[in-house]
Amino acid sequence: MSKTEVINRRIVLNARPVGVPTAEDFRLERTAVPAPADSQVLLRTLYLSLDPYMRGRMSDRPSYAPPVELDAVMVGGTVSRVEASNHADFQVGDLVLNEGGWQDYALSDGNGVMKLGSKISHPSYALSVLGMPGFTAYYGLLTIGKPKAGETVVVASASGAVGSVVGQIAKLKGCRVVGIASGEEKCRYVVDTLGFDVCIDRRDPAFAEKLAVACPGGIDVYFENVGGAVFDAVLPLLNNGARIPVCGLIANYNDTALPPGPNRLPLLASVILTKRITMQGFIILDHYATEFAGFFREMSGWVAEGKVQIREDLVDGLEQAPQAFIGLLAGENFGKVVVRVADR
Amino acid sequence: MSKTEVINRRIVLNARPVGVPTAEDFRLERTAVPAPADSQVLLRTLYLSLDPYMRGRMSDRPSYAPPVELDAVMVGGTVSRVEASNHADFQVGDLVLNEGGWQDYALSDGNGVMKLGSKISHPSYALSVLGMPGFTAYYGLLTIGKPKAGETVVVASASGAVGSVVGQIAKLKGCRVVGIASGEEKCRYVVDTLGFDVCIDRRDPAFAEKLAVACPGGIDVYFENVGGAVFDAVLPLLNNGARIPVCGLIANYNDTALPPGPNRLPLLASVILTKRITMQGFIILDHYATEFAGFFREMSGWVAEGKVQIREDLVDGLEQAPQAFIGLLAGENFGKVVVRVADR
Repeated sequence: MSKTEVINRRIVLNARPVGVPTAEDFRLERTAVPAPADSQVLLRTLYLSLDPYMRGRMSDRPSYAPPVELDAVMVGGTVSRVEASNHADFQVGDLVLNEGGWQDYALSDGNGVMKLGSKISHPSYALSVLGMPGFTAYYGLLTIGKPKAGETVVVASASGAVGSVVGQIAKLKGCRVVGIASGEEKCRYVVDTLGFDVCIDRRDPAFAEKLAVACPGGIDVYFENVGGAVFDAVLPLLNNGARIPVCGLIANYNDTALPPGPNRLPLLASVILTKRITMQGFIILDHYATEFAGFFREMSGWVAEGKVQIREDLVDGLEQAPQAFIGLLAGENFGKVVVRVADR
Repeated sequence: MSKTEVINRRIVLNARPVGVPTAEDFRLERTAVPAPADSQVLLRTLYLSLDPYMRGRMSDRPSYAPPVELDAVMVGGTVSRVEASNHADFQVGDLVLNEGGWQDYALSDGNGVMKLGSKISHPSYALSVLGMPGFTAYYGLLTIGKPKAGETVVVASASGAVGSVVGQIAKLKGCRVVGIASGEEKCRYVVDTLGFDVCIDRRDPAFAEKLAVACPGGIDVYFENVGGAVFDAVLPLLNNGARIPVCGLIANYNDTALPPGPNRLPLLASVILTKRITMQGFIILDHYATEFAGFFREMSGWVAEGKVQIREDLVDGLEQAPQAFIGLLAGENFGKVVVRVADR
């Protein structure tokens, strides 16, 4: 290891964003690489996952997880390699999944660190289709959405890390699948490569009308990961007994106040009542202990057989993470955003 | 039968209300009593149930059930006595539960008519605690609300036909039960007679604050039968994993447009997500075939043992039905509204 490598670059929360995060809300720091104490491992970040939930952690309003403290390293899932180990369970060179955050190196006592084995063909998939986003799609669709063959499933952010997997699983279950994505190129990919039945461009001025045309039999499952105008267009199309798993609301994450009226809450409540809708929020972290192993087994099979595909939007260099994250919140990514921090 | 009795008074929909219904939206007609054809029965209405859902049937906007046609008899559940029978299953004198509507006499082919037997002590209970409102409370609370001992259950319209039963069942299940009702007299009744732990007056200017004080451990189940300002006060108190069965939204039934902003829909969606809330609408008519018998058996036992009580707000005379119904929508009733149409 050369001397220049023994620096830990880390991106910390510089300021809590008001509305849309800016580059100034992050700060790149350089510190010495820490040495592992007894029973600790030093982990070298290879891939860092960028995900919409991180916007919530930048704010200090109450949520399901504590916020990132000011001047603390941004949180994030990482695929890492064991660089040094004082822990009996880990050997130098082991590839692991951990919560290393936005930095080159992280210390760990092994808690929550999962070994990926030496045979894994695409280590970064542990951050996408075989990791948190894929698990979110799988659990939310199958456990809450309960799609039946022949039903219509609608999913937004259809080319993204979660939506792309939701739609492909729904196709495996025999559903008609309607995607929603931003722009023609993504829509083409969603239909041609992912195999959705149709995909509507949410930027189309006639978006709501086109969604209605694409769902002639109404909507039985709407996998909610965006909120906003997409949800407004979905609402009148919901069928009796429809299910709405809610895993994210990216359209609202940068809001600093409630949108102007009219107040549509009574309309939603009325639709939930008269159409016997089930709307259920879930946080995938709650379900790792009981459900992850089953997901991982089944999804690994689907990926190996080519039945579920994932597109990665690879970003090179830790220093690019803030801009890539800002772009993710604006829908500028095309596929799962993964930052390649180091090659090995 | 004297000659004057052989008139059928019936209350028909005279006009579709805009906003709050008025007396002019109804019309009392007098017609001849029809004669039963082959396989028909003639039913004499003894008790007519008045329920909030009827407001929906007066409008022609799409809902889960078709609207009442203009000039047609208002729909409604009734306890009736068989007056004449050309149907093998029914004898003159039988007491039955049927959908006779707002009138003295109704013809039926027996479809959906349930015999009440000769031993029933309070025939009108078939319209309240042992009928649709009681079944709504039972099914919604137990199947969707899934209350566990020690949890906090909040129910609005706590002295009403549904709310009073919800709260009493929740007490039987070992929950802390917080009622919401209009005015001190109803609140006292809810605590002293029905046995709720506490009841908050929704007309109190400090209503939201008092609700928060009454739920120091948050809310695990909110049985939604009103909507509006009550729901707004409940929202910030919901616990992780809370369940919201939605059986009615009486606060909104007379609305002619969405309320002014801000738009609180994104706030609700955000709470559903971060707190993993399940919000589920249900229409009790869907569940009679599979669940009514079990409900009837268990609830009959509770009523016989004095574990569940019901207060009836008896109104004398069919001609009083429109005014009683208008009062029901305004929360002026005290207990389950039943119109006594005839004595025998």
